[in-house]
Amino acid sequence: MTEHSLWRFSRALHRAINERQFGDIEALIDEDVEWSLYGPVEMFPFFGARRGKAAVLDVIRQIAENVRVHRFDRETIMLGADSAASMMRYSLTALDSNKPISVRLAHFAQFREGRLRSLRMLLDSYELVEQALGRPLHLPKIALSA
Amino acid sequence: MTEHSLWRFSRALHRAINERQFGDIEALIDEDVEWSLYGPVEMFPFFGARRGKAAVLDVIRQIAENVRVHRFDRETIMLGADSAASMMRYSLTALDSNKPISVRLAHFAQFREGRLRSLRMLLDSYELVEQALGRPLHLPKIALSA
Repeated sequence: MTEHSLWRFSRALHRAINERQFGDIEALIDEDVEWSLYGPVEMFPFFGARRGKAAVLDVIRQIAENVRVHRFDRETIMLGADSAASMMRYSLTALDSNKPISVRLAHFAQFREGRLRSLRMLLDSYELVEQALGRPLHLPKIALSA
Repeated sequence: MTEHSLWRFSRALHRAINERQFGDIEALIDEDVEWSLYGPVEMFPFFGARRGKAAVLDVIRQIAENVRVHRFDRETIMLGADSAASMMRYSLTALDSNKPISVRLAHFAQFREGRLRSLRMLLDSYELVEQALGRPLHLPKIALSA
């Protein structure tokens, strides 16, 4: 049984982010990849949509310049033949401020011949914003209590 | 081929939220259900973790008192025999303020004998907070540009 494409991609992505070694990840991205990281792009310019291998490699380099991954815990996972989805909690450091950031995210990935064809990633962006700012935003209570 | 549990659950959930008809959803929730909606619980008390059918029915009632669903677009989906994950965009109205809210979310669900056994849901919480507040929060740019 061959290894699922997700595991190889995940190792290569973390190697790219933490060691700035981009050789492995480069070989695992489809030329026509579609890539969307949904999040506050005004705060973190590496969020947003990208199309094509060159643009995606650029954005991975940008992420590597901004964060280090300390650990990640995969809380839920679904694997298909050429697809994968998981919910994970990441512990990161923001490199400019040296702030620790812990954030939950969900991703949906599709692969073609072992290479990433599509990635959509969503995260608990308010949790991220508060930690990146380093202070709570003191939200008003909006919903009616039961 | 029988219908996937997700579709029945999804219809019953929307009926509960929009029509306050809880009979269908009640029959589709396992007694020992585990339920986590990750999001800003200080703003919306219906976020957070619940355990057991009674607690989950309570929280669905609380959601029904706070929002109406106008439409949802399923952007990505994975289905397993007794599991499902999807990324969706929801268009809602917050009932107290009559504000329209559009938010992307991801959920992972597990079913047992057609009933919901586990649900984890994550959403683009910053996007939600901004719309619920009705104003942008003017975030500083944190990340280095490439």
